[in-house]
Amino acid sequence: METSAQLLYLLNKLDKDNHFGFKDELDQSELVQWLFFWHGSGAPYQGNLGFFRRAQEQSPCKFPPIPPSSRPSEMMSTVLIQYPQLVAINRFRKETYRVLGVLELQLSGKYTGQPKDFLAGKGKGIYTVADIGTWAWVKNWPTSGYTAEEMKEFPHLLKWIERIAERPAVQRGIGGKYLLS
Amino acid sequence: METSAQLLYLLNKLDKDNHFGFKDELDQSELVQWLFFWHGSGAPYQGNLGFFRRAQEQSPCKFPPIPPSSRPSEMMSTVLIQYPQLVAINRFRKETYRVLGVLELQLSGKYTGQPKDFLAGKGKGIYTVADIGTWAWVKNWPTSGYTAEEMKEFPHLLKWIERIAERPAVQRGIGGKYLLS
Repeated sequence: METSAQLLYLLNKLDKDNHFGFKDELDQSELVQWLFFWHGSGAPYQGNLGFFRRAQEQSPCKFPPIPPSSRPSEMMSTVLIQYPQLVAINRFRKETYRVLGVLELQLSGKYTGQPKDFLAGKGKGIYTVADIGTWAWVKNWPTSGYTAEEMKEFPHLLKWIERIAERPAVQRGIGGKYLLS
Repeated sequence: METSAQLLYLLNKLDKDNHFGFKDELDQSELVQWLFFWHGSGAPYQGNLGFFRRAQEQSPCKFPPIPPSSRPSEMMSTVLIQYPQLVAINRFRKETYRVLGVLELQLSGKYTGQPKDFLAGKGKGIYTVADIGTWAWVKNWPTSGYTAEEMKEFPHLLKWIERIAERPAVQRGIGGKYLLS
């Protein structure tokens, strides 16, 4: 869980020309805020969502599947009372969804009037280690069990996922060269 | 959850003489690692332990209390099968306990031969924002439901909690002046 510390270390050590960070103190502070935001409020929640989903899959006790079309907020409390095992999944599913919504708000510019291509920086922002740290998790939303229907609430976030995926260096990074086999 | 970002901001902005951080790049990187460690691997786990403990307390479904003397590792799997509501509590209780053990290892110097007064820095270390961010949570171990017996496993951590608590500025900070009333 110190991956974010590594990103800041690499930034300070190797990125003297500020390709992936900022010289400006306030911009850099914004970057660090987004990096911590995902590190503390995103990753542990998406991670625990995965943990409890896997635990459910591996459990000998089977529950009725959550209908794929249901939004987190539509999950019936009666189901939770009958199947308390689902309380944790429900909590982390809802909380991760809420956090994805925070990223959507930032990228959409809903409250600032400034839609952004990347999380931090003036104007449309620049691609920084905040995006790098966050993207590697958020891109896995299908594995976390969210549906395309649910993700339609986050159009700017989906575009951001694609925008970063299209970068040649990102393609190399997630390509066969670094596969753990 | 961006409290750690605030700590780094204050450090950069106001602590020009490095009272609570380091000039040395490697020492500062160590500080940032511990800050992120607690931010991502400590706080969300201790926080969710509290969430699920409160949920259990407020639930109309009551379970047999976990015997106070039992270590997390001694919780019987049979209890978990009978009372699946406890799975989440058990997970976050064990994981937070494990993370407290990581802090104990660092402070004890078990693998380095160098016992430390504070988390980061050469020798015994110095009191930095990594301690500040971590202490504010860890000191609440009784509220998180750990017993004095369990905490005996972490003698260096307990001393570290006391060492920081004794600082006059810390006493002012947690004193009546800043109480939310």
